Amino acid sequence: MKEIRVVESVLKANDVIARDNRTRLNDAGVLAINLMSAPGSGKTALLEKTLPALAPDYASAVLVGDLQTTRDAERVRHLAKSVTQINTGRGCHLDAAQVETGLSGLELNELSFVFIENVGNMVCPAAYDLGEHLRVILLSTPEGDDKAAKYPTLFQIADAVLLTKIDLYDRLDYKVERVRDDLSRINTRAPLIELSAATGVGMDIWLRWLRTEREARRFRPETQLGD
Amino acid sequence: MKEIRVVESVLKANDVIARDNRTRLNDAGVLAINLMSAPGSGKTALLEKTLPALAPDYASAVLVGDLQTTRDAERVRHLAKSVTQINTGRGCHLDAAQVETGLSGLELNELSFVFIENVGNMVCPAAYDLGEHLRVILLSTPEGDDKAAKYPTLFQIADAVLLTKIDLYDRLDYKVERVRDDLSRINTRAPLIELSAATGVGMDIWLRWLRTEREARRFRPETQLGD
Repeated sequence: MKEIRVVESVLKANDVIARDNRTRLNDAGVLAINLMSAPGSGKTALLEKTLPALAPDYASAVLVGDLQTTRDAERVRHLAKSVTQINTGRGCHLDAAQVETGLSGLELNELSFVFIENVGNMVCPAAYDLGEHLRVILLSTPEGDDKAAKYPTLFQIADAVLLTKIDLYDRLDYKVERVRDDLSRINTRAPLIELSAATGVGMDIWLRWLRTEREARRFRPETQLGD
Repeated sequence: MKEIRVVESVLKANDVIARDNRTRLNDAGVLAINLMSAPGSGKTALLEKTLPALAPDYASAVLVGDLQTTRDAERVRHLAKSVTQINTGRGCHLDAAQVETGLSGLELNELSFVFIENVGNMVCPAAYDLGEHLRVILLSTPEGDDKAAKYPTLFQIADAVLLTKIDLYDRLDYKVERVRDDLSRINTRAPLIELSAATGVGMDIWLRWLRTEREARRFRPETQLGD
């Protein structure tokens, strides 16, 4: 079982770096959100609407993980104080060391939020703590209403589940009750927020959740923009 | 760099089993197709339409990989000669040993096709040869037109790329030319087949491709149903 021992030791090393990342974020009063989902569930589209909505009150940075290309980073580059692309090559998830490098390039004291857009993948990212405070899982309606039960390891660790692209409800034979039913067995802690970044429906609930989580942490007030 | 050496040795062991799987399939005259995509791209929906269409001429078996649940297997269980669910637990891909176990439960001499529905994931499955003959990558239109460039390792190994759920074209700002353009840099070998399992558009092209690939291999004629 040699390979399993090695994997465990890699995971432990990752956890140490993740803890250091979180300490750094806490010291600076920055709330870090790890966005995880399958490819194409709408993580970048969500950020395109979230960042401008937060901007009047909070400064945000984005770390974007992808195997290749800077396409997602380009989509949000003008919407955040700082946008960093992390290319993982063949890696199916971000790890804490990559996020550590990303954080090192930021002026954390000038920020309120760091959004980490993980590699599009419903399996691997679940196993890697990056040092984030909250894990947000996106599930887009075109993926089908059966995914929570099929990828439970990801949904188990969710602090919030966002059901995205609900403007396509009328075109799909989609049963939200099925998602709720699956989540009731996997994770009863995370709220399920239905939204569409395209039409804006539900965005207010998501933004309120973000602001509440940020304020509930009682970070130092001077980390808020304008102070 | 200890962990990388271990990963390489695991991959080599996988390749040996994959080669044995392929020999077994060749001896029995069975064409094996490895279906790979993100979660919810329509692998099972494709099989729901493909299996009945092939049934008059060819007998098929399905090996279904998922972390949890037997939901996909249940959807196709009455449509194939044999359907086997392989639960990977936390594993983000099928490996050759799992497929070997799956093949052991089949009467290969009575089959013409084995469809292997891999775990929904655009990264990990690309690295594991299962012993299949052909790799078919599905990309659903709601995932966006930018995924080929962002997940090149998967698209590089494709023998065919299926653009699925094209019945949603009118609702999405989708540029097929962008996919073609990306593929022209990543993989010029694989045909791009646009289809919708829901409406049936394009299914004839996909089925013709399957039949042609099966017949081009000149497997022993007695493996065809009815001989």
